[in-house]
Amino acid sequence: MDHETIAGTRGDLAALFDPRSVAIVGASDDTSKWGNALAQRALAAPGPRPVHLVNWRGGSVLGRPALRSLAELGADGEVDLVALCVPVAGFLDAVDDALAAGARALVAITAGLAELGPEGARVQHEAVARVRAAGAVMVGPNCLGIHDSTTALHLSSETLAPGHVAVLSQSGNVVIDLDDLMRQAGLGISRFVSLGNQADLTVVDLMGACVAHEPTRAVAVYAEDVVDGRGFVTAARELDAAGKPVVLLAPGRTDAATRGAASHTGSLTSATRVVDAVCAAGGIHRVDSPVQMVDVLAVLDGPRRGAGPKVAVVTDGGGHGAIAADALGAAGLHVPLLSPVLGEQLIGALWAQSTASNPVDLAGFGERDLFSYGRAIGALLDSDEVDAVLLTGTFGVYSGLGTRLAAPELASAHDITARVLGQDKPFVMHSVYAGSPPAGVLRDAGIPVHRDAGRAARALAATCGQLAASRFDDLAMPLPVAALTSTGYPEVRAVLAAAGVPFPTAAVVHDEDGLRAALSAGAPAYPVVLKAMGLLHKSDAGGVVLGLRDEVSAVAAYRELVLRLAPPAVSVEQMVNTAAGVEIIVGSRDDPRFGPVLMVGLGGVFTEVTDDVAFALGPVSPRTATELLLSLRGAALLTGARGRDPVDLDALATVVARVSCVAAEHPELAELEVNPLLATADGVVGLDARAITR
Amino acid sequence: MDHETIAGTRGDLAALFDPRSVAIVGASDDTSKWGNALAQRALAAPGPRPVHLVNWRGGSVLGRPALRSLAELGADGEVDLVALCVPVAGFLDAVDDALAAGARALVAITAGLAELGPEGARVQHEAVARVRAAGAVMVGPNCLGIHDSTTALHLSSETLAPGHVAVLSQSGNVVIDLDDLMRQAGLGISRFVSLGNQADLTVVDLMGACVAHEPTRAVAVYAEDVVDGRGFVTAARELDAAGKPVVLLAPGRTDAATRGAASHTGSLTSATRVVDAVCAAGGIHRVDSPVQMVDVLAVLDGPRRGAGPKVAVVTDGGGHGAIAADALGAAGLHVPLLSPVLGEQLIGALWAQSTASNPVDLAGFGERDLFSYGRAIGALLDSDEVDAVLLTGTFGVYSGLGTRLAAPELASAHDITARVLGQDKPFVMHSVYAGSPPAGVLRDAGIPVHRDAGRAARALAATCGQLAASRFDDLAMPLPVAALTSTGYPEVRAVLAAAGVPFPTAAVVHDEDGLRAALSAGAPAYPVVLKAMGLLHKSDAGGVVLGLRDEVSAVAAYRELVLRLAPPAVSVEQMVNTAAGVEIIVGSRDDPRFGPVLMVGLGGVFTEVTDDVAFALGPVSPRTATELLLSLRGAALLTGARGRDPVDLDALATVVARVSCVAAEHPELAELEVNPLLATADGVVGLDARAITR
Repeated sequence: MDHETIAGTRGDLAALFDPRSVAIVGASDDTSKWGNALAQRALAAPGPRPVHLVNWRGGSVLGRPALRSLAELGADGEVDLVALCVPVAGFLDAVDDALAAGARALVAITAGLAELGPEGARVQHEAVARVRAAGAVMVGPNCLGIHDSTTALHLSSETLAPGHVAVLSQSGNVVIDLDDLMRQAGLGISRFVSLGNQADLTVVDLMGACVAHEPTRAVAVYAEDVVDGRGFVTAARELDAAGKPVVLLAPGRTDAATRGAASHTGSLTSATRVVDAVCAAGGIHRVDSPVQMVDVLAVLDGPRRGAGPKVAVVTDGGGHGAIAADALGAAGLHVPLLSPVLGEQLIGALWAQSTASNPVDLAGFGERDLFSYGRAIGALLDSDEVDAVLLTGTFGVYSGLGTRLAAPELASAHDITARVLGQDKPFVMHSVYAGSPPAGVLRDAGIPVHRDAGRAARALAATCGQLAASRFDDLAMPLPVAALTSTGYPEVRAVLAAAGVPFPTAAVVHDEDGLRAALSAGAPAYPVVLKAMGLLHKSDAGGVVLGLRDEVSAVAAYRELVLRLAPPAVSVEQMVNTAAGVEIIVGSRDDPRFGPVLMVGLGGVFTEVTDDVAFALGPVSPRTATELLLSLRGAALLTGARGRDPVDLDALATVVARVSCVAAEHPELAELEVNPLLATADGVVGLDARAITR
Repeated sequence: MDHETIAGTRGDLAALFDPRSVAIVGASDDTSKWGNALAQRALAAPGPRPVHLVNWRGGSVLGRPALRSLAELGADGEVDLVALCVPVAGFLDAVDDALAAGARALVAITAGLAELGPEGARVQHEAVARVRAAGAVMVGPNCLGIHDSTTALHLSSETLAPGHVAVLSQSGNVVIDLDDLMRQAGLGISRFVSLGNQADLTVVDLMGACVAHEPTRAVAVYAEDVVDGRGFVTAARELDAAGKPVVLLAPGRTDAATRGAASHTGSLTSATRVVDAVCAAGGIHRVDSPVQMVDVLAVLDGPRRGAGPKVAVVTDGGGHGAIAADALGAAGLHVPLLSPVLGEQLIGALWAQSTASNPVDLAGFGERDLFSYGRAIGALLDSDEVDAVLLTGTFGVYSGLGTRLAAPELASAHDITARVLGQDKPFVMHSVYAGSPPAGVLRDAGIPVHRDAGRAARALAATCGQLAASRFDDLAMPLPVAALTSTGYPEVRAVLAAAGVPFPTAAVVHDEDGLRAALSAGAPAYPVVLKAMGLLHKSDAGGVVLGLRDEVSAVAAYRELVLRLAPPAVSVEQMVNTAAGVEIIVGSRDDPRFGPVLMVGLGGVFTEVTDDVAFALGPVSPRTATELLLSLRGAALLTGARGRDPVDLDALATVVARVSCVAAEHPELAELEVNPLLATADGVVGLDARAITR
């Protein structure tokens, strides 16, 4: 995380996004080269910004005289931004020339650096050092360029539709995909930066540069590696606070996707559930495809009050209402039964055949009175009973039939649009006639219109669901304390106990005399447990003997344990009855990108049946720990189910938070785990603990 | 299930699908009436089939003379098929007239019958009786018509694209939706029947009529109610055996969808997991939306070897490979690592920068050699390591750029097409350029092409996954045995025990003397359990006392139980140690449409944590019971996890099958349940049982 120290200091990237002039080093007439594509696009860009073409052969490029080197520019030809399209062999020299010519920003297209191996990484590292020493910044290397439609800076190979979404991407093809989909959805791109190897400027710096960028209303990130995980969360929060949602496409839910990303950019991919935890912490909308990304951006571009999973479905009949309700359910949203009061109000706006239970089915009344759509939608948007409205079916059908209903249908579309824009809840339409003029009225007003109800439902879910899950612990990392001298069980247990994690009375003994002494002192009291030290997984290795009720059996068990496993020491501990409580796993793992990540889950026999775990960036507050615990599918075990006593949830959450703090204070630990942590109505107690250093 | 007796006897519906002549009763010049739309479409249909228009006013309709009644036709004007578009008040008379005129098939558009209430149901019932007495058949009432593109029978309001898919639907709007989507996918409709109230002909009869219908290659069903559940499964199996896949869109995964369907057609919706079990039993592909239905039909229309979840992803670079891998994973498919041998073969066909781990990333080589796409795809289709191939990315990009690569790209599309059609595995393409000429080459050849990789993945999953899950028990219902005289615990237990379900030794006692006698006879032996009779949920009501080790404690517990609950009797039973085994729930519920449906799941404490249950149509064989048990997420508990002994799975499966058989033999039971059924390494034993009559 060597970028952490400089994150946030590069908010003003004017030389990058709005340079007074640009130069393309490696400009070429050869259409198979990037130096050709960038030069063509830069020359075609509107506006008076000077463009200098540099080619070591000199002569002309694209019909304009080319410089042999930037040095030829002279004192009055100062360039702010230099794009480097040179072979890797000439990369460092080109960096030097650009810095010597006064460049304050570099866009390094050159490939063959860190993504190919150690030698490339060395050259890349050297380039970054020189750039930073000169007080400049660099995008890339191994990137595809930069584009800012708000300053007419066109330095990428694609022609991008202008708009309000900043796109930061590690994939050029994904940007082509997004641009095409955004055009269809009436959206466009304010800025595009191809991130490449993120050697100097990372996605975090570039997100930071969007906070104050007025024309940018949302930020779309395709990242296989966010480099500085904590900075990423902070930047996302700053954007969110500025009213600019962040939408993240980060493949890696499957091993195959991780392989794909690794082969593509050599990126270090975090576990997908860690990324989910990051999104929860940063208020980020995570999506799984370019299609979903644009669908979500379209919803976020419209009215949106924010959190809330309750959706009303309006349909003009047929099975579309039921199908949409299932689609919303599959996306994790709710289609609640409406109150009788609201139902009567709706029926009053419709006719007797209509149903108002949700789905609200006009049942043919739309044909009688096309403004019934608007009335029903308006009543639902005005009501507190739902958070969003989905219209599904065949709205727009009459415009194609050329009947007398075409004109009122178009007027109805304007009526719906006015009602939607006059309030603050999300509204999405699905129609078989998504391409019809009435649908066009909605789309032109920025209302999402889909041909597939599933897409409409998933887009709503990604906007409603995610916000509700946001967790806003401050995530400040504590100062490191003295590193553990050993990760032996007694030491790990001791540091946790000192932090307030309760453990049963125990003594570490090295021989039979020691065992007898501890037992006769009554510390621990019977029944006791023996644990062989020096084994990472004591239970699995048969290193734990339970239920010893007197000295004779304890000594016999001790002898057997020593004979079988020859442990360096044995811990003798007071036995706890696990049947009376719920076994929990609490662990923290140091993620290479995001630092300590906390996991809580159901332990014991449940781990075999259900992968019921939850993650959050650590350290967490007891409040977040409570939220995590209650988010488990088996939370009923904690809150009291089937006449069972509820566990002491406050005590449990406090201990979970403490474990996450200990992990954060010990950066030398790769993993720290208390498992099982027994939770009962009377409190919690750790029954085992382990740690692994990096 | 009053249709069961006639299912299968109506396979030849020639008068319905290929009538010698048709009549439309209620034909009208009023464009707001169905009698206008049907008459227009019937008159516009190609071919020589006579069309008779009937309107009680006589005169002319659509410029042609109209009959006042069918009786005017006379002896030589015999009509095979009559469409009834009359108000409900004239419905029965119109039925009589049609039958008197010799009609052998009726299509009843008339609405306002059973879907509105008991009086309508009475009229509908009477109509069916008259139709059947005359040896005729009826579609509807409350339907939207019928269409057969293979016989030029156009008797619905929509103009449908001809093709090879039979569409049977309870929603007209869904058919409009499907028709539009099928056109986009290059598919079309062989037959469409609007099912309406299914008063006479049901979806089952109409599926049966497609088995031998040569032009129909697949059957798409939108049903909110299949009326005859067992017949539905049988018909689906017959179609499957004839090589005609059945794709089912049946909303109802959520309560809201069930409400929507109920308000739409008044249908009786089965629980969604029952429908899933039906699909498994019938080899039916279940989908959730019209979009997915057409996507799946498109995959099924191409080469398909059948079962298999392993998919190779081929991409031309960028993040599309990783995104597609995640999409396939989300859809339940696998993207396996390829063998080194296959990897070398692929790299040999590509270049050194390419990766062949899966995703297979051409990494720019596609631009060098456009035929590398075909070579890579061909090698994967030929290999045994994958069951299907997905191409994702930007194939087709060059055709739009007008460069020298446009021609080879088009040739490459033909190369890919030839390779795909020359074998039997599914192949699907996603491309940003799904509308390009090269993509068109594939689409014209019937290869699915998508703009959204998620759709491509879900379509593959619905075809690959579902077949693998098919269960082919014969589902024959046993003859009913003598009905239970009582559903008291001892009687239910006795009938199960007689069928071979083991229970602990027990005695039913009515007083202290009886208790003492049973205990002193040693039947049961100590420790014993007391259970108060007459309570459906004994444990929840505190009617069970465990762990009584001698007569004194047993008698004391008996007195307390009698004092507190005053049960009619008490069962004293040998206690079983549940800690040594796994608690299972086995139940059967009589579904109103599908008959006995078996459920198995994890019981005890797991029911609070995980809804881990599996369903199948009963009665099941021990083989299917084993499959169900092993399909549980917590199956590891049964097969031995963490050093625990595996349970006797054969014994468990046998008992599960026996419970399903007892339920099937007792049609008077609405529910039958053994819970818990304790499974150990040594066998199984039922610890409680209950039944509910209808």
